[in-house]
Amino acid sequence: MSAPPARDARLHVLVLAGGGGTRLWPLSRRRRPKQFLTEFGGTALITQTWNRVSAIVPKERLWVVAGRTHEPVIRELLPDLAPPHFVREPAAKNTAPAIGLACAAIAAEDPDAVVAVLSSDHAIHRPDRFRDLLRAAAALAAERGKLVTLGIVPDRPATGYGYIEKGASLGPVREAEAFGVARFVEKPDVTRATEFLRSGNYLWNSGMFVWRAADLLAEIDAFLPELGKGLKEYAAAPAGTRDEVAARIFATTTPISIDYAVMEKSNRVAVIPADIGWDDIGTFRSLAEVNPDGQGGSATAREVVAVDARANLIHAPGKTVALIGVDDLIVVDTPDALLVARRDRAEDVKKIVDALAAKKRDDIL
Amino acid sequence: MSAPPARDARLHVLVLAGGGGTRLWPLSRRRRPKQFLTEFGGTALITQTWNRVSAIVPKERLWVVAGRTHEPVIRELLPDLAPPHFVREPAAKNTAPAIGLACAAIAAEDPDAVVAVLSSDHAIHRPDRFRDLLRAAAALAAERGKLVTLGIVPDRPATGYGYIEKGASLGPVREAEAFGVARFVEKPDVTRATEFLRSGNYLWNSGMFVWRAADLLAEIDAFLPELGKGLKEYAAAPAGTRDEVAARIFATTTPISIDYAVMEKSNRVAVIPADIGWDDIGTFRSLAEVNPDGQGGSATAREVVAVDARANLIHAPGKTVALIGVDDLIVVDTPDALLVARRDRAEDVKKIVDALAAKKRDDIL
Repeated sequence: MSAPPARDARLHVLVLAGGGGTRLWPLSRRRRPKQFLTEFGGTALITQTWNRVSAIVPKERLWVVAGRTHEPVIRELLPDLAPPHFVREPAAKNTAPAIGLACAAIAAEDPDAVVAVLSSDHAIHRPDRFRDLLRAAAALAAERGKLVTLGIVPDRPATGYGYIEKGASLGPVREAEAFGVARFVEKPDVTRATEFLRSGNYLWNSGMFVWRAADLLAEIDAFLPELGKGLKEYAAAPAGTRDEVAARIFATTTPISIDYAVMEKSNRVAVIPADIGWDDIGTFRSLAEVNPDGQGGSATAREVVAVDARANLIHAPGKTVALIGVDDLIVVDTPDALLVARRDRAEDVKKIVDALAAKKRDDIL
Repeated sequence: MSAPPARDARLHVLVLAGGGGTRLWPLSRRRRPKQFLTEFGGTALITQTWNRVSAIVPKERLWVVAGRTHEPVIRELLPDLAPPHFVREPAAKNTAPAIGLACAAIAAEDPDAVVAVLSSDHAIHRPDRFRDLLRAAAALAAERGKLVTLGIVPDRPATGYGYIEKGASLGPVREAEAFGVARFVEKPDVTRATEFLRSGNYLWNSGMFVWRAADLLAEIDAFLPELGKGLKEYAAAPAGTRDEVAARIFATTTPISIDYAVMEKSNRVAVIPADIGWDDIGTFRSLAEVNPDGQGGSATAREVVAVDARANLIHAPGKTVALIGVDDLIVVDTPDALLVARRDRAEDVKKIVDALAAKKRDDIL
């Protein structure tokens, strides 16, 4: 139709890879959080995250923020990552300090940088559409100074996500339409979620953002002035001493999410509805959706033989799995741990992890 | 109290070890039927069977009947077994031909032999009492020519066993009381089983028998004359040619159980009520009873961590098992197969085995 898409000159990608990933235990472990799992499509989710956008962002503009522990595996899974572009998060203080640190590093290298902040553990089934929307969001950020969030168009009354109510239209932007944000809404109950879905005015808060690094830092200055001050110091420090500065900043920083700290307060916020086949792979319920299957439910196994069994989600690579008279179960088998749970109780994996932690069973966590 | 028990001079033990054992799949396999499993008490069930009676029977009077396939493992598990005392069953033709063959061999060596016929895959929690009753049964067989069966005193309205209705008392025999048999009853439904339990007149048919070998052979002559004729030929044949003779007999023998063929027809039958803590380990429900445990049900695992889980039966040696919101499940984990079943559907393991057999998945059976 048109000319081949030009690379968007100033777009950087920041991959958030700091997650601990216990919601998928025993599949995910402390040392193997879900962004490193290959069970969702053959390659690690973090590698998929980068592969999905590498056609529109040169590898010199790839950044990752994560803890030091995960640096070796991330470098292995992302060979395109330039060594200085791994931003070490000195401690887990939620997303605002981590994103601030990374945006400070990016702005120090490229003061006009536009940054797409992406989670490392999502599945996106329409990558073409996703890239189009990223370009639209980058234009909105570069040309109109917006802090853009991608709002997923809901296809069911999910209660596991926060919602964004669309405000007034900001008009078409490339192949998308942008909106102001009327408000951010906490995870609703199923009644409200059903209303939200019916109204057509609500989107899921995906945790993916696009903004000019300088604009984000200005908002941090406004809403978290202490952190903002620290980040200036960090950006000004010589590369060799930055980790030390970061450790000092993080020692006194209060943990807070970028949503609470900035997005819910800023008047520069915009949202682009995203119909991209998104899945956050937050709990095992997502595994079912990513690997759909027929008899006896979804399965990753050598084979499943079922007698009167329905809607079970099985992960037992290499094994023959027999099911008799059971419905709506999650079964996850690993060499040292086995989970059997009701599907609607998937969130309670956290309780299992807490119980094992209390028993000092660190070898299994 | 009294003098130390004398060894019962003519008592032989015949262990039936021919079972195929698919009811405990994936724990048991074709090549590893349940009599060879060590999950029920640390040593193989067949070894436990012999150890339980070796205090009252000299090892020269131990016999086993089983298929040739299992001979090596049985010899390993029963080092006390004299080489000529392994009686090779040429084909699986149910219990009457196998027991007949073994009793012919025993009678050929010791014409006055009294034989205790024991299953190789039962658990017995009161071995002292069991030995006392075996001695009583042996006396009844030796002195009064009875075909004695041990009838388990029921402790619940089980529907998985045949029942024996006691007849008139035959009076005390040593430390037991013996009865005639009014009738044998097929597996009842739960209503009848409850009546049986309440009446106090019914016992479970355990499949354990004590008789003079010569008496059993006489009854086979009466009720299965063709087989009886073959068995005489077998007994008369030189040791080196017996397998050949047995193969010829079995080629034309109709499969039939000793219960149908002899016990339900003979007027020499007696029963001794046996309060011996008996468990036939026929399905996984038995595993629960043999390995009782607390939270989350019974378990053979490294550890079980449970959230809202009750009455589950877990077999996953070495693993950490997490249960969330599940009740009354059987979970059996092995290196190549995993079973998840509702406890009340344990019998349907047979359907799984049949389905795998139909798919020619012999490596897993």
